[in-house]
Amino acid sequence: MSGNSFGRLFRITTFGESHGCGIGVVVDGVPSGVEIDVDYINRELKRRRPGQSSISTPRDEKDKVEIFSGVFEGKSTGMPIAMFIANRNIKSTDYENLKDIFRPGHADFGYYMRYRMRDWRGGGRASGRETAARVAAGAIAKMVLDKWGITIYGYTRKIGDIKIKEIDYDFIEKNPVRCPDKETAPKMIALIEDVKQEGDSIGGEIELTISGVEAGVGDPVFDKLDAVLGHAILSIGGIKSFEVGAGSKVSEMKGSEYNDRFIKRKGKITTHTNRAGGILGGISTGADIIIRVAVRPPASIAIEQDTVDIDGKKRKIRIKGRHDPCIVPRVVPVVEAMAAIVLLDSILIKKAYATV
Amino acid sequence: MSGNSFGRLFRITTFGESHGCGIGVVVDGVPSGVEIDVDYINRELKRRRPGQSSISTPRDEKDKVEIFSGVFEGKSTGMPIAMFIANRNIKSTDYENLKDIFRPGHADFGYYMRYRMRDWRGGGRASGRETAARVAAGAIAKMVLDKWGITIYGYTRKIGDIKIKEIDYDFIEKNPVRCPDKETAPKMIALIEDVKQEGDSIGGEIELTISGVEAGVGDPVFDKLDAVLGHAILSIGGIKSFEVGAGSKVSEMKGSEYNDRFIKRKGKITTHTNRAGGILGGISTGADIIIRVAVRPPASIAIEQDTVDIDGKKRKIRIKGRHDPCIVPRVVPVVEAMAAIVLLDSILIKKAYATV
Amino acid sequence: MSGNSFGRLFRITTFGESHGCGIGVVVDGVPSGVEIDVDYINRELKRRRPGQSSISTPRDEKDKVEIFSGVFEGKSTGMPIAMFIANRNIKSTDYENLKDIFRPGHADFGYYMRYRMRDWRGGGRASGRETAARVAAGAIAKMVLDKWGITIYGYTRKIGDIKIKEIDYDFIEKNPVRCPDKETAPKMIALIEDVKQEGDSIGGEIELTISGVEAGVGDPVFDKLDAVLGHAILSIGGIKSFEVGAGSKVSEMKGSEYNDRFIKRKGKITTHTNRAGGILGGISTGADIIIRVAVRPPASIAIEQDTVDIDGKKRKIRIKGRHDPCIVPRVVPVVEAMAAIVLLDSILIKKAYATV
Amino acid sequence: MSGNSFGRLFRITTFGESHGCGIGVVVDGVPSGVEIDVDYINRELKRRRPGQSSISTPRDEKDKVEIFSGVFEGKSTGMPIAMFIANRNIKSTDYENLKDIFRPGHADFGYYMRYRMRDWRGGGRASGRETAARVAAGAIAKMVLDKWGITIYGYTRKIGDIKIKEIDYDFIEKNPVRCPDKETAPKMIALIEDVKQEGDSIGGEIELTISGVEAGVGDPVFDKLDAVLGHAILSIGGIKSFEVGAGSKVSEMKGSEYNDRFIKRKGKITTHTNRAGGILGGISTGADIIIRVAVRPPASIAIEQDTVDIDGKKRKIRIKGRHDPCIVPRVVPVVEAMAAIVLLDSILIKKAYATV
Repeated sequence: MSGNSFGRLFRITTFGESHGCGIGVVVDGVPSGVEIDVDYINRELKRRRPGQSSISTPRDEKDKVEIFSGVFEGKSTGMPIAMFIANRNIKSTDYENLKDIFRPGHADFGYYMRYRMRDWRGGGRASGRETAARVAAGAIAKMVLDKWGITIYGYTRKIGDIKIKEIDYDFIEKNPVRCPDKETAPKMIALIEDVKQEGDSIGGEIELTISGVEAGVGDPVFDKLDAVLGHAILSIGGIKSFEVGAGSKVSEMKGSEYNDRFIKRKGKITTHTNRAGGILGGISTGADIIIRVAVRPPASIAIEQDTVDIDGKKRKIRIKGRHDPCIVPRVVPVVEAMAAIVLLDSILIKKAYATV
Repeated sequence: MSGNSFGRLFRITTFGESHGCGIGVVVDGVPSGVEIDVDYINRELKRRRPGQSSISTPRDEKDKVEIFSGVFEGKSTGMPIAMFIANRNIKSTDYENLKDIFRPGHADFGYYMRYRMRDWRGGGRASGRETAARVAAGAIAKMVLDKWGITIYGYTRKIGDIKIKEIDYDFIEKNPVRCPDKETAPKMIALIEDVKQEGDSIGGEIELTISGVEAGVGDPVFDKLDAVLGHAILSIGGIKSFEVGAGSKVSEMKGSEYNDRFIKRKGKITTHTNRAGGILGGISTGADIIIRVAVRPPASIAIEQDTVDIDGKKRKIRIKGRHDPCIVPRVVPVVEAMAAIVLLDSILIKKAYATV
Repeated sequence: MSGNSFGRLFRITTFGESHGCGIGVVVDGVPSGVEIDVDYINRELKRRRPGQSSISTPRDEKDKVEIFSGVFEGKSTGMPIAMFIANRNIKSTDYENLKDIFRPGHADFGYYMRYRMRDWRGGGRASGRETAARVAAGAIAKMVLDKWGITIYGYTRKIGDIKIKEIDYDFIEKNPVRCPDKETAPKMIALIEDVKQEGDSIGGEIELTISGVEAGVGDPVFDKLDAVLGHAILSIGGIKSFEVGAGSKVSEMKGSEYNDRFIKRKGKITTHTNRAGGILGGISTGADIIIRVAVRPPASIAIEQDTVDIDGKKRKIRIKGRHDPCIVPRVVPVVEAMAAIVLLDSILIKKAYATV
Repeated sequence: MSGNSFGRLFRITTFGESHGCGIGVVVDGVPSGVEIDVDYINRELKRRRPGQSSISTPRDEKDKVEIFSGVFEGKSTGMPIAMFIANRNIKSTDYENLKDIFRPGHADFGYYMRYRMRDWRGGGRASGRETAARVAAGAIAKMVLDKWGITIYGYTRKIGDIKIKEIDYDFIEKNPVRCPDKETAPKMIALIEDVKQEGDSIGGEIELTISGVEAGVGDPVFDKLDAVLGHAILSIGGIKSFEVGAGSKVSEMKGSEYNDRFIKRKGKITTHTNRAGGILGGISTGADIIIRVAVRPPASIAIEQDTVDIDGKKRKIRIKGRHDPCIVPRVVPVVEAMAAIVLLDSILIKKAYATV
């Protein structure tokens, strides 16, 4: 109930603060007998970690996961898999002068009003570092989904007003901005570098294409697949919108334009178009699941800002330290991870209720 | 786990199908001693029900709620409040010829793939009629929130490409399209009537402004207030996007443009602007909570459509019956209800953990 | 969280008070395609209802279940099955003079301290009548378990100090005290009649033998099968102890006496004896599951008792009305129902995680 | 859903195996601002750990807890408190020859049937070592309860057929068997030493007296305080019965003997006697809460036993290694811990719903 767990049958519980000893996650509900590839988890963590290129923060978090439990002779035992990622390269002193100040765009104020105290070192629990635990848990989910032929492609769709024109999945991981479009990537990078020069930051958009999910996944009424995906993904810090399929564009569409007509293709019933984004009535149709989210510009900027402190006194701050001018590329694997968690969870539920 | 319940401390469980004997909800976690005004619940239901005007379906669901439990001498006892709304004016025969056909844009196909059978009468459980139960439960939540000075204003922001220019809360309930802008309302109505003539349907956008929520409501990490609101609201059939505050526009913003600076106003710390939409790091800041959702055009249209039946055989359908050309105005109270449920639930959680 | 729901994948939510309009339950998580036999549910309800014989209360609750949802053409659709049992033959006036008095042995005082008000009519929500909803839900669970060859036998093991000597399952339903021993049944009945003459009441013991549960059902650590059965069954009003297998006798046993040795029988690994009661480490072994519970004497007695009222003033009460001198036989189907619910729930969970 | 979490608002998630790298727990829902005394947690762990005296195993688990998160400047922050206890002094080789054999009385067989594999080193997840995590979490709960004046006394009531005659709380921690009776303690110790000589083991009984819980704690119907305590405590390995108040003796009592009459004492309404054990209708009455449980004899004995292996082939085993002849004294702090967790959780829930 305190918000640090997510999922039903596949359920993760995370813990840890930005500048404490580390970040961790307990992954419960992993079916037994799954080969757990630690290198894969570390590779996923590397995709998220900062210091990957000139467009992200130079803070170099050499994250290596330690597995504490639930794996025996290389395979999941069905018991909870606890993973821990130690914090290294920590400089709490960067934050000491900010401890009584509410940073604009950050969670400081709300946490203070809720808990009447807070671990101010680097945002504490509200730091983006928390997402490392999600990525580690998501890597476990992906290992299972992979056996079932399910693939999740996440990529940067937009940085500022620069938008992709085409999608080449193979190009995504070949550029630091995770853009699937060879022509657009350098423009996005240039924009981020400009913004960085100004001491400012910039937002963007991420898209997810999930293929291989069979029809019939998702639950009725309150746990519609898109609602649960929405919960999972909107819980990632900095995401301010969530769309499925045609998304916000449906507000201008007519029924005759929006409805995807059913057809039979290769012996399977499917839809001719995919405006619904692979989900109808909260249940998967077998078509690709398409999700789009907007990521706000990072709140920590070098430009001077007005704010107040705990006593409401006016203060000026200029956030030093090593911050990302744009977090979109680093959020891509986090969004993928949350989607993977929801999908595995939903498929386990479907299995539970399979025809008596 | 089967998706028919929502909430943590304030938890609702709904049941019932479109053409069964009725729709109901069990509301658990209502604090004791709250005056339960049945007329208010019925008024809320009336806002949702069809047959309200020329722009909605002529199906007239004279919904009256029956309270089965949890209320004694006009007050909540702390025990579950079960409510039931009988189905009247049902014509299952309208659906008999569609029972083997997958209607484009509807949940039919996914349900069939999941359950290998379905109650095909009017969409069964997947029907929009299910939302009557949400509205009844939301009315209970609103009665409690009202005591705490929390108000939820829902209104139509857009129909097709017609968008509001200003917001007058008092005008919302004075026009059938729930538009808060006197100038725009007639244009929206005209558009809906045109579309109806064509046998087609149209989408739109709903906005919610929630005022009076104190700072400090919402839970960390996975149960951020916006994530839970997202879950709740995206679970309403036909909603394809969810945005908080500046929403999808953040993708084009710089940090210096996006961050709301903190100020002190009337002795309280708050933000000068409200791009964050009243939520930072998943916790309320005390500013108005702003949410926007896109509603797809109704799937049932009179225009002939291509589709397939259970055997994958090509079929043509033309959906007769009494359907809405636009559901946006009727979805407004449903979105409000889900927001009310989330807010009450989140506030109860805050109370539980209040400083020891 | 408010205590009116139970179960994980197979989850029931109950509502209703003793002297309100009725008692109901929403059963969520029923796999689709199960034939739902309403007559069977009514027969189960009849086993629980009072007025069955001279040894139970003459209140005649002619309970008939109404099914509101989740069943289509005689089969479960996978949607929640809501059931309602109207209250008939109600006399609230019997309770009017007790409304400010805390009846000894009843829940009145605790409820008052918790909710600062209570529905005093017949115990309200705390009445034994609430268990009708459990029995109806349990009947659904039994229908599914029956398909899997699982049988639950509940019977009276003891009334006062009269204990059974042998077990004949076929005799259980042939005598009003649900005693499985032809010789002992009349003695139990005689004791109950004596106690009734005295205006007093008497306790007893119920035993459950569950056969046909395959090995491997139950979850680790906190959701051990016996712990969840304990939760379910101890939640029935009036049950004050719960034992598995050798139960409380294990306190006097040595390891060499207690351990059941494993053997192979008819090609299957099983145990030679069954002191563990079919559960080891919280997981079923395939042997019969054996549970024993003690049921306290009914609190409502005609003998005059001392107590206090809401203001702490001394009062004397003599509880009139139609009360059971012994509830043991009527609790038997309730214990069976809760066991059925736990077993179905646990088996669905096992299915969810079945080898990837 | 996988059984490794317990609690609602105060919720613990444990992980780790007997012979893996360690045992841990994430404690979520700790109110902020509670002073966290690490030494106290370690003292509680010491009460549970083996090697305390001649009557327990000589395995010396020098457990020291590491706190990973949720504590800042000595106080809880409201964020999850993750704790880890490294495994030391491990000898997996002791178990290598048992890896294909189902040990009588152990969880081996059920786990194998459920997961089709198992971590056979020392029982893996099913080992009693798992309870160290419960004790650490319980210590956190006790720190909060202590502020509210709630005290939990756990003690050994019986070893074999030797039973206490009187209760002196001060003597409990002064003898290795945790017996509250100076006369009886040496007899219990002598019995355990005899049994140990025989290569056998012995069971016993634990009693809990909880004082200081105000009236009105506990939830209706399914989450009655005794039902949740039953769930929590029956989930501890080796506990085979659970009783509240008069417990199993109620089966032989009459209503006139059982009912506790209400009285006013020191300005407060309470009961004259306490046969109900402090709980009526699932809600606390303010009287002491009394619980009794039977603990089976340890399954690991040196005496030769018959059993079978994975293939069903007959095998003989003699369990070497360092095992307890009686676990009762070491289980006392575990039972206390689980009770503390349930009480804190239930009180938080009461606070959430407090009168609007």
